[in-house]
Amino acid sequence: MSNIVYIAASLDGFIADKDGGLNWLQSVPNPENSDLGFADFLDSIDCIVMGRNTFETVAAMDIQWPYPKHVFVLSNALKSVPEKLKGRVEIIKGSPDEITAMLDELGYERKYIDGGKTIQIFLECDRIDEMIISRLPILLGGGTPLFGVLPEHLMFEHTATDVLLNEIVVSRYRRKRLSATEKK
Amino acid sequence: MSNIVYIAASLDGFIADKDGGLNWLQSVPNPENSDLGFADFLDSIDCIVMGRNTFETVAAMDIQWPYPKHVFVLSNALKSVPEKLKGRVEIIKGSPDEITAMLDELGYERKYIDGGKTIQIFLECDRIDEMIISRLPILLGGGTPLFGVLPEHLMFEHTATDVLLNEIVVSRYRRKRLSATEKK
Repeated sequence: MSNIVYIAASLDGFIADKDGGLNWLQSVPNPENSDLGFADFLDSIDCIVMGRNTFETVAAMDIQWPYPKHVFVLSNALKSVPEKLKGRVEIIKGSPDEITAMLDELGYERKYIDGGKTIQIFLECDRIDEMIISRLPILLGGGTPLFGVLPEHLMFEHTATDVLLNEIVVSRYRRKRLSATEKK
Repeated sequence: MSNIVYIAASLDGFIADKDGGLNWLQSVPNPENSDLGFADFLDSIDCIVMGRNTFETVAAMDIQWPYPKHVFVLSNALKSVPEKLKGRVEIIKGSPDEITAMLDELGYERKYIDGGKTIQIFLECDRIDEMIISRLPILLGGGTPLFGVLPEHLMFEHTATDVLLNEIVVSRYRRKRLSATEKK
């Protein structure tokens, strides 16, 4: 059972710029329009947990719904999902511990945790097991930070690094918990 | 002529933890006590520019003075350097533009820019040409940030990435300025 972060960030650790913009994600030339492994990643997971902001951003885009796996939207405010997404998107609430337990129970082993705020609250509870971070070679100088305040240091183990399009450094990490008695 | 950053940071972009501590830099097992290329890097540069904090931290350590190249300490407050460091350490003041011009004039081509605050003011003025960032696989959750607020996005070009001790991802970047008419 793993909760997995898969996200792109600037060198200074932002996931959106000062205006909330994402254009900088296109700043690396990508002539063949590679998805940089995103489809393979989606294949590898069993469900997606995202915050309301991320959900509403993606739902508002003029594109086909991009997620082939069940999406759980973490929200106290949201009451229902658009008709066309019923059966594919579900609203849930609870702490990272509760949500992890519930989804484990339902048999979702590899859970993709997405959205800045959602990632931060899962990390605060030490509920992230793997991180795949793609660093673009840009300093944004401000914006929405990927990481937030933590009550304690969290050690990870580096498992692999690849460079995509000669510019994007993709590093994979696994949470290194010191003993079996620590919470998983 | 290049101003070069060479620094270790946590995954969440801190160079010291919440208590100003640096013990986390030892969190990766290093049985053969490798210097991780630091001596080679020092060989490759012509002088060092650092802030007063970094200078005073290193000067207070119970070690031999570690820098084989001339050190310029950026400070308005500092009036003199300890007797034993005279001839090796010099106090300077001025803006990143002025300091760069002065050291260029003196023939220092590759300048190692060190210390959190100093790196930030040089980046604010777009006076960093190369960055070598070593990411340790740890989230500190707070502390002294490597990067600060910038007036605009700064694009870099990724030139190389190496993984040291299986855990530390060292990436090299070169500032990508769009045209020769932009300031260097």
